[in-house]
Amino acid sequence: MPPAATEPLTPERILETTEEVLRRYGPTKATVVDVARALGVSHGSVYRHFPSKAALREAVTDRWLGRTVGRLEEIAAAPAQPAPAKLEAWLEALFEAKRHKAGDDPELFATYGVLLAENSGVVEAHLEQLVAQLGRIIGEGVAAGSLAAADVPAAARAVFDATGRFHDPQYAAEWRSPTIVAEFEAVTALVVRGLRA
Amino acid sequence: MPPAATEPLTPERILETTEEVLRRYGPTKATVVDVARALGVSHGSVYRHFPSKAALREAVTDRWLGRTVGRLEEIAAAPAQPAPAKLEAWLEALFEAKRHKAGDDPELFATYGVLLAENSGVVEAHLEQLVAQLGRIIGEGVAAGSLAAADVPAAARAVFDATGRFHDPQYAAEWRSPTIVAEFEAVTALVVRGLRA
Repeated sequence: MPPAATEPLTPERILETTEEVLRRYGPTKATVVDVARALGVSHGSVYRHFPSKAALREAVTDRWLGRTVGRLEEIAAAPAQPAPAKLEAWLEALFEAKRHKAGDDPELFATYGVLLAENSGVVEAHLEQLVAQLGRIIGEGVAAGSLAAADVPAAARAVFDATGRFHDPQYAAEWRSPTIVAEFEAVTALVVRGLRA
Repeated sequence: MPPAATEPLTPERILETTEEVLRRYGPTKATVVDVARALGVSHGSVYRHFPSKAALREAVTDRWLGRTVGRLEEIAAAPAQPAPAKLEAWLEALFEAKRHKAGDDPELFATYGVLLAENSGVVEAHLEQLVAQLGRIIGEGVAAGSLAAADVPAAARAVFDATGRFHDPQYAAEWRSPTIVAEFEAVTALVVRGLRA
C-alpha cells in the first residue's frame, strides 16, 4: 500500500491500514511503527488517535466485529417483515458472514482469532449486541402474536446458544463440511418452530 | 495401586489400570511398561490383550466415552415415559455426565481431551451412538403423536447440534458459569417445544 500522506489521517484510515499490516506481518509481529510507516506518517501521529498498541488492537477488533453487526442490524430493523421470517434471515446472515470471514481469508481470520482472545471485553460487548438484536426480533413477534416467549431476553440468548455451531469461531473448521448447510437449516427450523406462538 | 497378580488379567483390569497410570503420569508420558508395572505383570501380558500402545489408548478412550453412553441408554430404553419428558431427561443426563467428568477430575478430563483428539474415529462412533439414542426417543414420540419430525434422524442431529454448548468439551470452561444451568434449561425447553406435535 503506497503512503498517501495528503489524505487526512482519520481513525478509519489508521484502522484500515492496521488490518492490512496485521494481514501482512501476523498478529504477533505487527507494530505501531509498521502501521505508521505504511501510512507514511510518524508513529506519534498514530498515537494521537490511539494512545497505545493495545488500544489500536482493540479498536481494529471492534471494527472487524462491527462489520457483521451492521449488516445484521439492517435485517433486525427492517419494517414489515414477519418476525419468524426475520429470525430465519438474521440467523442465515450471521452464519453467512462468519463463514465468509473464515473461508475467504483464512489468514486474516486466524489473525483476528488471536486478537479476539486478547480483547474479551470487546467480544462480550459484540455478543451482547447480537443477542439484543435477536431480542428485538423476538419481541416484535411476541407483540404481533406470531412468536411466544415468556422471557424475551432469555429466549434470545437460547436462540443464540442453540445456533452456536454456526457462528462460534471454534467451529470454523466444520463450516467447510458438505453437510453444514443442511445442519444449519435443521437447527434453524427447530429453533424457529420452538418459538412459534 | 498395589500389584495384585493373583487376580486374572482381564482387559477391564488393564484398562482400569491404564486410566490410573494416565491420571498419574499424564497422556504424553504414560507407557505400556508403566501399565504392566502397576499391574505387576510383564508388558508382554498387556500386549497379549492390546497389540499396541495405540490400541490400548483407543480402548481406554472408548471405555471412558462408553460410561456415559450406558447411563443414557437406560433413559432412552425406559418404557412408559412420554417422549418429551424422556428427551429432557436424556439431555439433562448428558449435560450432568459431561459436567461431572470435567468438574470432578479436571486433570483426567484434560488427559482424555488429548486422547479424544488422537482417536477421532472412536469419538465419531460415540457421537453417532448418542444421536441414534436421540433418534429412538424422537421416533417413539412421533409414533405416539407427542412429537413431530418429518425426518427423525435429521431432527435427532439437530437436537444434538442445538445443545452442543452443554456437551461439547470445547465449552467445558463455561460449565462452571453460575448461569449455565439456566441457559441449559432455556435451550432444552426451546428445542423440546420445537419438536412438539
